[in-house]
Amino acid sequence: MATAGALMASEIAEQPQVLERLLTDGAAHAREVGRVVAESAPRFVLLAARGTSDHAALYAKYLLEVRLGLPAGLVSPSTYTSYQARPDLRDVLLITVSQSGGSPDLVATTAAARELGATTLAVTNAPDSELAGVAELHLDVMAGPERAVAATKSYSAELLALWMFVQSWRGNDVAAAGAVVEAAAAHVDRRAEVIEIAHRYRFTDRLLTTGRGFAYPTAREAALKLMETSYVAANAFSGADLLHGPLAMIDHEHPVVAVVPDGAGATAMVPVLDRLVERGADLLVLGGAQSVGYGTTTYRLFPLPEDLAPVADIVPLQWLALQMAVAHGFDPDAPRGLAKVTRTL
Amino acid sequence: MATAGALMASEIAEQPQVLERLLTDGAAHAREVGRVVAESAPRFVLLAARGTSDHAALYAKYLLEVRLGLPAGLVSPSTYTSYQARPDLRDVLLITVSQSGGSPDLVATTAAARELGATTLAVTNAPDSELAGVAELHLDVMAGPERAVAATKSYSAELLALWMFVQSWRGNDVAAAGAVVEAAAAHVDRRAEVIEIAHRYRFTDRLLTTGRGFAYPTAREAALKLMETSYVAANAFSGADLLHGPLAMIDHEHPVVAVVPDGAGATAMVPVLDRLVERGADLLVLGGAQSVGYGTTTYRLFPLPEDLAPVADIVPLQWLALQMAVAHGFDPDAPRGLAKVTRTL
Repeated sequence: MATAGALMASEIAEQPQVLERLLTDGAAHAREVGRVVAESAPRFVLLAARGTSDHAALYAKYLLEVRLGLPAGLVSPSTYTSYQARPDLRDVLLITVSQSGGSPDLVATTAAARELGATTLAVTNAPDSELAGVAELHLDVMAGPERAVAATKSYSAELLALWMFVQSWRGNDVAAAGAVVEAAAAHVDRRAEVIEIAHRYRFTDRLLTTGRGFAYPTAREAALKLMETSYVAANAFSGADLLHGPLAMIDHEHPVVAVVPDGAGATAMVPVLDRLVERGADLLVLGGAQSVGYGTTTYRLFPLPEDLAPVADIVPLQWLALQMAVAHGFDPDAPRGLAKVTRTL
Repeated sequence: MATAGALMASEIAEQPQVLERLLTDGAAHAREVGRVVAESAPRFVLLAARGTSDHAALYAKYLLEVRLGLPAGLVSPSTYTSYQARPDLRDVLLITVSQSGGSPDLVATTAAARELGATTLAVTNAPDSELAGVAELHLDVMAGPERAVAATKSYSAELLALWMFVQSWRGNDVAAAGAVVEAAAAHVDRRAEVIEIAHRYRFTDRLLTTGRGFAYPTAREAALKLMETSYVAANAFSGADLLHGPLAMIDHEHPVVAVVPDGAGATAMVPVLDRLVERGADLLVLGGAQSVGYGTTTYRLFPLPEDLAPVADIVPLQWLALQMAVAHGFDPDAPRGLAKVTRTL
C-alpha cells in the first residue's frame, strides 16, 4: 500500500518545475492571448469557476481591478444554467478557470456568453477539453496530469497563467515571476516546519482562515484544501468581513490561520490581527515583517511583489492540509465522497 | 435582567409590519429611483456591502442578472481602499447596501466610484448616514432603529427594497410582494416549530448550510446569523460548490441545513440533496414539494415566487439562530466581540 498522501506530496513538490515550465514555454502564448484581448478592449470582466479554480478566479479579479483598472465580477453559473439569464455581454470578457475543463455548467456558461457577445477565454489544464474547445481563446496551464483529488500544482499554475496573461495584456513582460518560482521551491523544502505546526492542530475539528486583498484567495484555498483532506470545518473570511459578525465565533479553543504577506493587504490586516489577539485567538500567522509579531505560531513568507506572492504562498498551506489529514489518520489522496472531476449543472 | 434574546426576538417579530410599511410608504420613492437609474441605462452593476448586507447584495446580483439581464459583480472594497484601483466606471451602477450607512470602506468606495463616472445608489436603514449622503441616489429601507447586534429586520427590508427597486426599474409594479408580507407573518407565528428543531442541535458546534440560486443568499445569511449568535462554525456553500470539495466534510455527526424553496433553484439542488443523503448527512430541509422528502427534519416553506421567497424564508432561520444561542446558554442580543456598527477600512 502506498503511503497516505504520497500522490498529493509528489504534486506539491512538483510545483517549482511546473511553474518554471509555464513561465518559459507558456510566455509566447500568454503574450498572444494578451494581445488579442487587449485589442478587443473589454470594459468589464466576468469570471466563472468552481472549487479550487474559483479561488484562482478570485485572484484574477483582484489583478484585473487593481492592475488593469477593469471592473470585474464572479459569475454564478446558475444564472445562466438554471435561470436562463441572457445579459448583453458586448464589451465583456468572460474568463473561465477549470483544471479539467469538464464541468458542464462552465461549458454552458461559456457557450451562452459567446452567443451574447462576450470575448471568451478558458484557462485549463486540459487543452483538449470541452471547455477549451467552446471558448474563443484558451490558456493551457501546462501542469501535467494531476492525479491527486485535491488540486495543488494546477492551482499555482492557474494563478501564474492568469498573472502572465494580465501582464501580457498590459504589454509588460513576465520576467518578475522568476522570484516566485524560487520561493515556491524554498517552500517545498520547508515541509518539516509545517509538520511541526500541523502537530499542534491534531485535535481540532474546526478552524478559521483569513487574509485580505491578494492574500484572501490564498486563505480561501487553504480552507478548501483543509476541508477536502482533513474534513475539518474550515471557514474563510476576508479580514474585513471577519469583523462584521464571524468574530463572535473566535475563542482560544479553535485556531485561526492568517495569511498576511507584506504589502497593502497586510496594512489593512493589522486592525484585524489586533482584534484577534484581543479576543484571545490561537493565531498561526503566515506572514512577513508586518505581521509575524502577532502569531502564537508563525511561518515566515518570502518577500515578493504582493500580486505574485499567492503563487508561492499557497505551498505551505498545501503541506498543512496534507499533514493535518495524515495526523487525523486520513488519506488525502482519496478523500471520501469526492472524484477528481466534478460535474455540476 | 431581560430575557436572553428578547431584543432580537422582538425585531424578528416586527418584520411583517416593517415589510408592509416599506411596501406602502416606500413604493413611490422606489419608482422614482428606478426611473432615474433606467434613464442612466447602466451596462454593468457593481455591488458593495459587508456582513449581513453583503447577502442582500448577493440577492440583488441574482435579481439584476436574471430579471434585468445585466452582468453584475460584487466589489471587494479593498481594491479601492487598499490598492487604489481607479477603474473606468462610466455606464456602471454601483449599489452599496448597509444597515447603518456608516462603514468607512463603503463610503470611500462610493465616493471613488462617483468620481470615476458611476451612478451610485446607497440602500440603507439610515437616511442621514454618511453613505446615504455621499451616494447620488438613496433608498431608505425604513426598518426603524435596529437595536439587536444581529441584524434581522433590516436584512429582510433590504431584500424587499432591492426587489422593489428592480421591479420599478423594469417598469413593473410591486403588488406581488403582498404575499411575502403574509408569509413572513406566518413564519413569525411558527416559532414553536423552530424551537423543536433547535433542540436537536443543542450539542453541535459546527454545521453547514446550502442553497442555490435565489436561495443561496438565504443559506449564507443563516450561517452568519448562527456564527454571530451561537458561535457554531457554520459554513455556507452554493449547492454546486459544495460538490467541488467540501462534500468530503459531510458525515452523520454534523448537521446540514438546506434552503430549497420550490423553483429552478430546487431543481438544481436535487442532485446535491441526493449526494448528501448518500453521504449519510443529517439534513434539515427548509423547502417545498420538490425537496422536503429529503429531510431528516423538515420545515415547510410557503409557495412564493422564487425571486421573492428570500424575503420571507430567512425568518425561520433567524428564529433558529436565536433559539440555538439560547439553547447554548448565550445571549444573542449581546454577542461577544461585536458592536452594532462595524467600521472597516
